[in-house]
Amino acid sequence: MSDGTLAHPMGRPTLEEVARVAGVSRATVSRVINGSPRVSADVLAVVEKAIAELDYVPNRAARSLVARATMSIALVVPEDAHRFFGDPYFADVVQGISDRLDDSDYVLNLQLTHPSSPSEKTKRYLLGGNVDGALVVSHHSGDHFLASLGRSLPVVFGGRPLGDVANPGDYYIDVDNRAGARRGVEHLVARGRRTIATITGPADMPASVDRELGWRDALTAAGLDAGRVARGDFTEAGGIRATLALVDAHPDLDALFVASDLMASGALLALEERGLRVPDDVAIVGFDDSPYATRGKVGLTTIAQPAQQMGVVMADTLLRLLAGENPPHVTTLDTHLVERDSA
Amino acid sequence: MSDGTLAHPMGRPTLEEVARVAGVSRATVSRVINGSPRVSADVLAVVEKAIAELDYVPNRAARSLVARATMSIALVVPEDAHRFFGDPYFADVVQGISDRLDDSDYVLNLQLTHPSSPSEKTKRYLLGGNVDGALVVSHHSGDHFLASLGRSLPVVFGGRPLGDVANPGDYYIDVDNRAGARRGVEHLVARGRRTIATITGPADMPASVDRELGWRDALTAAGLDAGRVARGDFTEAGGIRATLALVDAHPDLDALFVASDLMASGALLALEERGLRVPDDVAIVGFDDSPYATRGKVGLTTIAQPAQQMGVVMADTLLRLLAGENPPHVTTLDTHLVERDSA
Repeated sequence: MSDGTLAHPMGRPTLEEVARVAGVSRATVSRVINGSPRVSADVLAVVEKAIAELDYVPNRAARSLVARATMSIALVVPEDAHRFFGDPYFADVVQGISDRLDDSDYVLNLQLTHPSSPSEKTKRYLLGGNVDGALVVSHHSGDHFLASLGRSLPVVFGGRPLGDVANPGDYYIDVDNRAGARRGVEHLVARGRRTIATITGPADMPASVDRELGWRDALTAAGLDAGRVARGDFTEAGGIRATLALVDAHPDLDALFVASDLMASGALLALEERGLRVPDDVAIVGFDDSPYATRGKVGLTTIAQPAQQMGVVMADTLLRLLAGENPPHVTTLDTHLVERDSA
Repeated sequence: MSDGTLAHPMGRPTLEEVARVAGVSRATVSRVINGSPRVSADVLAVVEKAIAELDYVPNRAARSLVARATMSIALVVPEDAHRFFGDPYFADVVQGISDRLDDSDYVLNLQLTHPSSPSEKTKRYLLGGNVDGALVVSHHSGDHFLASLGRSLPVVFGGRPLGDVANPGDYYIDVDNRAGARRGVEHLVARGRRTIATITGPADMPASVDRELGWRDALTAAGLDAGRVARGDFTEAGGIRATLALVDAHPDLDALFVASDLMASGALLALEERGLRVPDDVAIVGFDDSPYATRGKVGLTTIAQPAQQMGVVMADTLLRLLAGENPPHVTTLDTHLVERDSA
């Protein structure tokens, strides 16, 4: 679907060409496409490389003759169970997807895969006709497999694919992370804060990158320094570590923009540990408006993002693709500021 | 597998008999067994009823000719996303299952289904050759579908199937909930507590039933009254409601045995709301030793259960069944008391 529709242009590469480039038989390519468990990891890699090079798209009509519809949709989450269960963001997205699929004939097939990239067996499973389509969240920019999955079956991403692995034909639902972050930092500036650091998520995730850009936008517009950055990992422990590093390196810090409420919850603990008051000494703005925003001693001012709505729209977009419709390639959801006590 | 092995006794019912009893064609029964999406819900129900009545087990060798191995294992969780993500017990079980499957060729296919019983589409999916086996947790006693799933494919339960839907050939991993609960209540009795209420989980779940029995065992052995019971639902909000009801009905209450840490976390909040001190006025023992045991103002004394280990053993047992081995039908894991400040 790199051309963005279910129809394919004339002159597309054939299965025979894939076999020739890969140096294997036609039957072997067919086995890879149909996910036979009898393909070795080496052969799988060679054939996948050839498929990627040629931008080969299996003929859906031909496939449907050998592989019946599974009536199942994968949700691929390249995170370990600890992080998946630890961040309420995922619960909201899954709830939204489930709600939308309840009105369909499809079941949800949740695939927790290894952080950063799926294992070989998961790749084989997803390419093997076991699901009719896939939803992908929490993907990382280095993951070429997930980025190219849209060549083999209908895929909708939650959050735009990043960098060199993005394809023009990708379908994705995103949150306006950059504008949301900018709004949060503008709020801190309006409250008179001048030395505003940020705690980001991993550098290979679009939500991290965009929220950092929004933080930078607001500081630049206000003529303030945008040099205080600590890298977090979207966990509470990571928020604690990053905050301790920031306050120790920058004793003049008077505000923090933190890229998730879970990390901001860690920031609250770390500031308490250092004897700093929130918001008197250090003001905080988080991101999510998750249950963590109201769980600590100080209510978090935060940027609310519609995670459940993202799940609904992701599922809806995929169902439309599976029904042969042409949904928009990109849907962007808005955020808004929720004021509490921390800023 | 109602006879408890992968081999079947002679004279077992045939597909033809199922068709005769159901009043449908042989091809229709075959479609049901192979999960064709073209079977109506009515026909599915009639054929499933006939399969259950005859205790029919599809011939595995014959099936493998038409349905290749999927190399995937379902984890069926009949809970909504809110409860699944809200209780750290599930995160631990999933982590354990994932850890064990990492060393296998199988992928984990997580199926969140409707509370109390899977939807028709999920039933069809599970019976339709889309998974090679299933793990089931958080099942409820009224769920005849999940209880009979073991007739159609290898199934391992986390927690024993309850009551009239239990089959002698079931495979399950359980925690010694009754002994654990008894140990927790004995601890309260040893601390001089005399009016000890309990907050249970749902009445249709084995963990709830067994923990209530253990509470009763300890009170009976100590000659104390076992009349103070409030029904909870394994959520924090349910723990708050049940605690308020108990302290309002029984002002002399001096201790609570709560069947999960998440509910006990709610109990702490409710007691604070009523101005009661923990443990001075009311002592609490929870169950799980989850992160909630250490999250509140007062550390919870609790019965630790090995949830991650349960996941590991469930997956291991299913892998052994899939490999044609004969693992034990029942494995029971031990619990132990963890003392903190609440009792």
